[in-house]
Amino acid sequence: MMTKNSEFTVPGIPDELFIRGKAPMTKEEIRVLTLSKLRLTPFCRVLDIGAGTGSVSVECALLSPAGKVYAVEKNPEAVLLIKQNCEKFGVSNVEVLEGKAPACLHGLPPVDGVVIGGSGGNLQAITAAAGSLLKPGGRLVVNAILLETLAGTLQAMKEEGFDRVELLAVSIARGRELGGKTALQPLNPVFIIWGTKQGERKEQEI
Amino acid sequence: MMTKNSEFTVPGIPDELFIRGKAPMTKEEIRVLTLSKLRLTPFCRVLDIGAGTGSVSVECALLSPAGKVYAVEKNPEAVLLIKQNCEKFGVSNVEVLEGKAPACLHGLPPVDGVVIGGSGGNLQAITAAAGSLLKPGGRLVVNAILLETLAGTLQAMKEEGFDRVELLAVSIARGRELGGKTALQPLNPVFIIWGTKQGERKEQEI
Amino acid sequence: MMTKNSEFTVPGIPDELFIRGKAPMTKEEIRVLTLSKLRLTPFCRVLDIGAGTGSVSVECALLSPAGKVYAVEKNPEAVLLIKQNCEKFGVSNVEVLEGKAPACLHGLPPVDGVVIGGSGGNLQAITAAAGSLLKPGGRLVVNAILLETLAGTLQAMKEEGFDRVELLAVSIARGRELGGKTALQPLNPVFIIWGTKQGERKEQEI
Amino acid sequence: MMTKNSEFTVPGIPDELFIRGKAPMTKEEIRVLTLSKLRLTPFCRVLDIGAGTGSVSVECALLSPAGKVYAVEKNPEAVLLIKQNCEKFGVSNVEVLEGKAPACLHGLPPVDGVVIGGSGGNLQAITAAAGSLLKPGGRLVVNAILLETLAGTLQAMKEEGFDRVELLAVSIARGRELGGKTALQPLNPVFIIWGTKQGERKEQEI
Repeated sequence: MMTKNSEFTVPGIPDELFIRGKAPMTKEEIRVLTLSKLRLTPFCRVLDIGAGTGSVSVECALLSPAGKVYAVEKNPEAVLLIKQNCEKFGVSNVEVLEGKAPACLHGLPPVDGVVIGGSGGNLQAITAAAGSLLKPGGRLVVNAILLETLAGTLQAMKEEGFDRVELLAVSIARGRELGGKTALQPLNPVFIIWGTKQGERKEQEI
Repeated sequence: MMTKNSEFTVPGIPDELFIRGKAPMTKEEIRVLTLSKLRLTPFCRVLDIGAGTGSVSVECALLSPAGKVYAVEKNPEAVLLIKQNCEKFGVSNVEVLEGKAPACLHGLPPVDGVVIGGSGGNLQAITAAAGSLLKPGGRLVVNAILLETLAGTLQAMKEEGFDRVELLAVSIARGRELGGKTALQPLNPVFIIWGTKQGERKEQEI
Repeated sequence: MMTKNSEFTVPGIPDELFIRGKAPMTKEEIRVLTLSKLRLTPFCRVLDIGAGTGSVSVECALLSPAGKVYAVEKNPEAVLLIKQNCEKFGVSNVEVLEGKAPACLHGLPPVDGVVIGGSGGNLQAITAAAGSLLKPGGRLVVNAILLETLAGTLQAMKEEGFDRVELLAVSIARGRELGGKTALQPLNPVFIIWGTKQGERKEQEI
Repeated sequence: MMTKNSEFTVPGIPDELFIRGKAPMTKEEIRVLTLSKLRLTPFCRVLDIGAGTGSVSVECALLSPAGKVYAVEKNPEAVLLIKQNCEKFGVSNVEVLEGKAPACLHGLPPVDGVVIGGSGGNLQAITAAAGSLLKPGGRLVVNAILLETLAGTLQAMKEEGFDRVELLAVSIARGRELGGKTALQPLNPVFIIWGTKQGERKEQEI
């Protein structure tokens, strides 16, 4: 089950290793925390909504080599980037669904985890659809950069009956060299919200 | 190679699952980021200096099931906690070294990664010793909560010739319920500093 | 117009100088930023809703010695603290209104600025009442620690027609001594939201 | 003593109101907190080292209309900006000293407060000179964006015998509109360090 990408068996592929276009990208540290809250195992089926450049999808695919990732993305340019990044990191278990959620989620099998990186303003319907697709005990993790999305997600997840909705407000600054000394360069603050679908998690199978 | 702890094949064991005493503990989110920067593979030998409750050692051991973790801790009470937590999480590849670094590092084989969670004020000597033990291409990751340690670590790592010393200043707040609504509870700010030992990383073997 | 409290002609009375009970208190640094956004002059009439220990009211009264502060507080114990703190800092231009907003705002004259430190969940009605009382060009400044209040305030202020609603997310940590070195002790994160009542600010008179 | 600039009797002139060049500028919120820790009265003599665009000097001059501000700046272009901003905000009690500290501080009278916004790497000598010029009970406030400056300032202030050296780590994000919603735009993290010159503060006179 070891891939040639063994350098990244632990999450945290540096941002600059991804092929990037204009699509927004989940920064390395936010991605690492997001994946941690998603609590994947090697056998998970994962849904990544608003996949952007595919950085989260690629890392999910590496963490669940015997599982499968569905990457939903409406922007055709970003769809191409996802495919390119999957190829670059040697993952073949990502299926890209071009289109808008929740419409294009129709017909998907139950999943062990859902990441929402972007909702395109359709938060309520997407949260409901994610809740329907999740197996009991599965995790939904949302990355929010808009304060309105933050509040809306908290409310939607409570309404959809998720257990114990939790969140992180993440303010991270990276060191950067400035005249031989070290200054701090802040990343944009992000909120990570997650919850568990009600019910007992079954022994994992796919 | 799958353990029964498959729930945590991705870093991020919740703090409350560890057996805790008075020893300080690396909080879940800081641990996740620290492990990410350490860039482990399943075959790594890791040195954890100032192991505290053993939360970092346990996660390293789970991430490197075919490797080995040396947990250095001077406090006898914490040494016991480390052993209890290893047992609780079913890891058998952690060896606890009771004593002070760098003295008790004598005779250790070369390692792929070093974490310094606590230096007991002996930063310069410990950084030098860690630098000696690291294989070329190996990573040193330091968690600093003291501003003086932060500056001292930056300087010591540069003096020891680490490649491209980088750092994160991490300010994370967790959501907490307050009267049915959500307030933010800040974790203590932590600095994570890391660098790579000069030289080419060799194909990993142990 | 100089009082004996000339040490605090600039905002920022240290927290420990206030008489404190169980009532929550706006921390010094948050108070300083809040007062800055309120943009007082020596002649302002100010309304402080959810005044708590009275720290904001006292500082407003010192900054507007020829003006007047109305401090609204529903908790009788806190009402006493406000009066004690006014006495301690020698300010006589604070009038305490015991009761709940917006009910107890009835009959107040137009004001130049409003601070909402606590809304008791009655945000929409209080924002509307504050909007009615504010003179054109006057500022409303809200301190929010609840994420739900944050989003609700943004929405309510836009609905009430405030000009250019702005906000700060404030994460401040104070240095604290730890074994002769310096660690960081985080304050609770606070959101400061403000906006200006539509219309031209008239030359100030009272 | 009222100037026509009465809108800013409380610190916090918006950044965009200053005439700006390439010189770095202390952002409004950092300025407000810095001025608060400086604890000025209307009669203070203040020394602003590394004055940049003059935003701190202008606010000090407005807060101490019966006092005087010495603005030290080595960059000729910035010197011009300071003078332009003084004119724009109608303050006539700022004297600009073009040159490097500590050399150009020679011959200055004792001062009630010192702000160091930039040290040009000459931190130790500047801290010592500031300590000599400060009256007993006067405050030194340092803004540091470099981690090395932070640690160096803490050490230098302790060596110079300042009472109770304290600090803030300030991470503030401003709201910004994004597609009709609100995202957060982080300011660069800044450390504010301050201490009080040993001795009793005398009744202020100038």
